[in-house]
Amino acid sequence: MFEEIEVSSKSREEFIDITRSVENVVKKSAVHEGFCIVYVPHTTAGVTVNENADPSVCRDILGMLSRLAPRDDPQYRHSEGNSDSHIKSALIGFSHMIPIHDSRLTLGTWQGVFFCEFDGPRRRSVFVSVISAKM
Amino acid sequence: MFEEIEVSSKSREEFIDITRSVENVVKKSAVHEGFCIVYVPHTTAGVTVNENADPSVCRDILGMLSRLAPRDDPQYRHSEGNSDSHIKSALIGFSHMIPIHDSRLTLGTWQGVFFCEFDGPRRRSVFVSVISAKM
Amino acid sequence: MFEEIEVSSKSREEFIDITRSVENVVKKSAVHEGFCIVYVPHTTAGVTVNENADPSVCRDILGMLSRLAPRDDPQYRHSEGNSDSHIKSALIGFSHMIPIHDSRLTLGTWQGVFFCEFDGPRRRSVFVSVISAKM
Repeated sequence: MFEEIEVSSKSREEFIDITRSVENVVKKSAVHEGFCIVYVPHTTAGVTVNENADPSVCRDILGMLSRLAPRDDPQYRHSEGNSDSHIKSALIGFSHMIPIHDSRLTLGTWQGVFFCEFDGPRRRSVFVSVISAKM
Repeated sequence: MFEEIEVSSKSREEFIDITRSVENVVKKSAVHEGFCIVYVPHTTAGVTVNENADPSVCRDILGMLSRLAPRDDPQYRHSEGNSDSHIKSALIGFSHMIPIHDSRLTLGTWQGVFFCEFDGPRRRSVFVSVISAKM
Repeated sequence: MFEEIEVSSKSREEFIDITRSVENVVKKSAVHEGFCIVYVPHTTAGVTVNENADPSVCRDILGMLSRLAPRDDPQYRHSEGNSDSHIKSALIGFSHMIPIHDSRLTLGTWQGVFFCEFDGPRRRSVFVSVISAKM
């Protein structure tokens, strides 16, 4: 089972909760035991898991990333003006994988899956792949 | 094969070597070729692989993370006082996957699997999932 | 399908494009739907995906990592003089996984797979594992 999810970001930097969309693909796959890969085929965006109860958690993560890799740094050599976006993506990562147990994603109580935009606004793709374990 | 490992952390920040427990799940699974997923269902803890020979390596990683995301930073907006823990987890990551070849985890000579506590002490869970390749 | 790729780094810190080698393993596996794991069995090297069009992107990522974890920092306790390499590896990560769809790695247009050397020059190994989905 392989599906493409479309995401439209509205700001340059933004975390978008895609938990529901990922869960829908898992449900459709009818996989009982296995795992799910969430993959971002971009170089200035990423994917992570984090708390989805209080949105200030995501804002604090974005704040730290911006202090670490400010948008304008005279040391950057990449000429497109988005070196910070590439750096943030490399730190957050481009793929995430979650086990499926008893037909359910084993997300923790406070965990949500987030698409991380670092160079928006843009239309983006997320690939969700569900693999069944041999059992 | 899906198992839950329990981990009890003793400090607020700590790396706990869980290599042996993960290896035991792989052994029990009797999987010859495939891979193993280590997944942390929390938002203030993570999992990584690193050197388990000299414990000062882990302390140096924790030290850097604390300089990067100090516990008290007036810029944090999340009100629970553990924004730094969420940030550290996002940087280290919540899942790790290691290939299994010839019935063995393909960890390098110096690699161990570590549960990373960033908001302890607590009782935590780690999910270990072993998948067999179709061969 | 499990293969070991050999990589020889030429500097202390360097990103080496291994996209072609990974694609070759996927081609040889003849897997139609599934995924590929790229795993680095070292503790001072990592693997990431990023832009392979403009090499200055990799240089900017390396630059940020070196400002974050300078080679010499009196706070490091690990005595081998490569604490910064362990820290950079922990941030970048040791494994990467990419879905395979229609017999192709689903890399984005601008994505390449990079072996990340943080303590070279050395001869290194990268494990590439290809898993077929049950379909």
